[in-house]
Amino acid sequence: MSPNTPKLTVDAVIILNGKIVLVKRRNPPYQGKFALPGGFVEIGETTEDAAARESAEETGLSIEIIKLIGVYSQPTRDPRGHTVTVCYLAMGEGEPRADSDAEDVQLFDIENIPELAFDHNKIMKDAGEYIHGILSKM
Amino acid sequence: MSPNTPKLTVDAVIILNGKIVLVKRRNPPYQGKFALPGGFVEIGETTEDAAARESAEETGLSIEIIKLIGVYSQPTRDPRGHTVTVCYLAMGEGEPRADSDAEDVQLFDIENIPELAFDHNKIMKDAGEYIHGILSKM
Repeated sequence: MSPNTPKLTVDAVIILNGKIVLVKRRNPPYQGKFALPGGFVEIGETTEDAAARESAEETGLSIEIIKLIGVYSQPTRDPRGHTVTVCYLAMGEGEPRADSDAEDVQLFDIENIPELAFDHNKIMKDAGEYIHGILSKM
Repeated sequence: MSPNTPKLTVDAVIILNGKIVLVKRRNPPYQGKFALPGGFVEIGETTEDAAARESAEETGLSIEIIKLIGVYSQPTRDPRGHTVTVCYLAMGEGEPRADSDAEDVQLFDIENIPELAFDHNKIMKDAGEYIHGILSKM
C-alpha cells in the first residue's frame, strides 16, 4: 500500500507487585533514561500482541492487558521521526530481568516515577487514575 | 527511520442531529458499502487532526472529538494490507455533503446501522454505550 504514514509503536504501563516496571534505555535517543517498555509494531501482529512481545523482550515479564490508556501522536514526540504510540495498562507476571535493549529493569513506586524518556511522564499521568484504582483493590 | 510498521489510519464515529454520519465508499475495497469517515494519517499530523481532516474531506463536517473509542489492529481487517486504525467518537457540525472519496453521505439512526465496510460494525458496537450516553443527554 502506497501511503506513507507515521511509524507505529506500543508502550506498556506494567503493574508488578504494586509497582510500575520501567526500563533503562541502552541506546539513543534518551540513552540512560528510564522509559516504559515498548517498541515498534511489526506487520502482521496486533498492537496488543506487540505490547506483550516487547514487554517480554525488554523486561522478561508476561503481561495481561487491562485497558487502552491512549494514543500519543504529537509529531515531535520522538526525535528520530514521527512515531505514534498506542499505550496499554497491563498486569505483569514473572521475574523482571533486563534484556538486550534495556540496560536495567527497575520497579518504581507510583509516587516516585523518575523523569522518563519521550512523553512517557505524560502517559504515566494519564494512566494515574486507572493505576490508583487497581492498587486500591490489591 | 527504518522499521517497517503497519499503516496508520483514523476513523470517526460522528454524531450529528442525534444520528450517525456514514459515507458510501466510491472506491474498492468495499466499494458501494457504507463506512465510517476516515483515512490514512499523514506524517506530521496528530491522529486527532487526521480525524478532523478526513471527516471534513469526506463529509463536509467539522468535528469536535469527544473520546477515543479504541485501536483496531487485526492484520486481516483491511484486504489491502495491514492497517491499524485509531477510532474517535466526535460531535459533528455543519451541513453534510459527499466529497471526492465518498459517493454519498447519509445519517443513520443508531438502531439502524447498515452492514459496514472493514470492521466498522464492531467499532460501532464498541461505541454504542458512549453514543447512548450522549444521546440520552440531548
